[in-house]
Amino acid sequence: MKIIIGNKNYSSWSLRGWLAAKQSGLSFEEIIVPMGGEAWDELKQDGTGTQPSHGKVPILWDDEIVVWDSLAILEHLSDKVGRERFWPKDEAARAMARSMVAEMHSSYFALRSECPMNVRKRFDGFEPSEACKADILRILSLWAEARSRFGSGGPYLFGTFGAADVFFAPVVSRFISYQIPVPGFAAAYMQAVWEHEWMQGWVEASENEEWVIEHYDTVS
Amino acid sequence: MKIIIGNKNYSSWSLRGWLAAKQSGLSFEEIIVPMGGEAWDELKQDGTGTQPSHGKVPILWDDEIVVWDSLAILEHLSDKVGRERFWPKDEAARAMARSMVAEMHSSYFALRSECPMNVRKRFDGFEPSEACKADILRILSLWAEARSRFGSGGPYLFGTFGAADVFFAPVVSRFISYQIPVPGFAAAYMQAVWEHEWMQGWVEASENEEWVIEHYDTVS
Repeated sequence: MKIIIGNKNYSSWSLRGWLAAKQSGLSFEEIIVPMGGEAWDELKQDGTGTQPSHGKVPILWDDEIVVWDSLAILEHLSDKVGRERFWPKDEAARAMARSMVAEMHSSYFALRSECPMNVRKRFDGFEPSEACKADILRILSLWAEARSRFGSGGPYLFGTFGAADVFFAPVVSRFISYQIPVPGFAAAYMQAVWEHEWMQGWVEASENEEWVIEHYDTVS
Repeated sequence: MKIIIGNKNYSSWSLRGWLAAKQSGLSFEEIIVPMGGEAWDELKQDGTGTQPSHGKVPILWDDEIVVWDSLAILEHLSDKVGRERFWPKDEAARAMARSMVAEMHSSYFALRSECPMNVRKRFDGFEPSEACKADILRILSLWAEARSRFGSGGPYLFGTFGAADVFFAPVVSRFISYQIPVPGFAAAYMQAVWEHEWMQGWVEASENEEWVIEHYDTVS
């Protein structure tokens, strides 16, 4: 199994696909296509539908099977290794986790455009627009509800680390980078995600992307 | 079980949630909140996160369990009645179906903004932008690949009617309304979807939304 991802500092969807691969417990090879490089341009130009991926990362190759899109990758892996590795056992908790993941997958455009993921950086004095504030408030209220109703088994949204945390991990990174003020429960949750072994591995790798730091950081 | 949907002429995400409910084979009550009415305004104003749905339709209430977002609704129902009612049995076909559904869930913004679903209407002389043309081409290429690789068991994308058809049904409606020229295989697929019993029921209901026709059509 191999997963094609963009670089680790900027590519939030890659982080989701990669965390899903980690969560599966299966071994996989990662292939990094740094944003801004020639291979990236080739990947991007392939927008005509002649290739399955539509020029977007992440892409999972599972033997001869190709899966593109982070949510499809997560569900594909969940089919393979068992749903309970990704989703809560309890039906009501799972319904909420599925709804939150789907909402993350299709929403929060203000947050996504004003606060692009930038794992290594910290920005002082960021002022969110009203739309971005609404996105942040919505996310915090979902986190609060998940934690209070279903989070008693651990520090993550539904207790143990799962699909919802995989999907909100890039938001945690954004809230840290842009220094978004959050209530205590959210700070505790963010800390748990940030200190997770896989997240720490990703953060460390993002700090050592020499090609990206030299070539891409200066042009964007 | 009950599903809250917007009106049938305009609400493409409602159509997806409703078709998923039909596909489950379970009985359900439908509650229509017509776009533009007072109840709709109330639903929309509820964007602060105090309610689970974020003021969007469709919303599924399954006893005390609430599921919002059409994709989460589909997966919730798939958990309930068995995955094979929604997704192909074959792993490679299922991986492609999952990828296509996820892409539909998060993409095609040009198509969605230039061609809002309007089940009852036909528009002459529609000229898509380049971005909209790219969306159309991408969708047609995915349809072609699904039909040619996995569609031998029936007229739908993966043979029998399933999740991918649920998700692309509003696109079929758009291609018909805006009279998008399509190759023969796509026309045959669109006809199969359009003539599906559930789709015909939805189309017929859209033609009889008296409140919407009187109050909403004139203001939008």
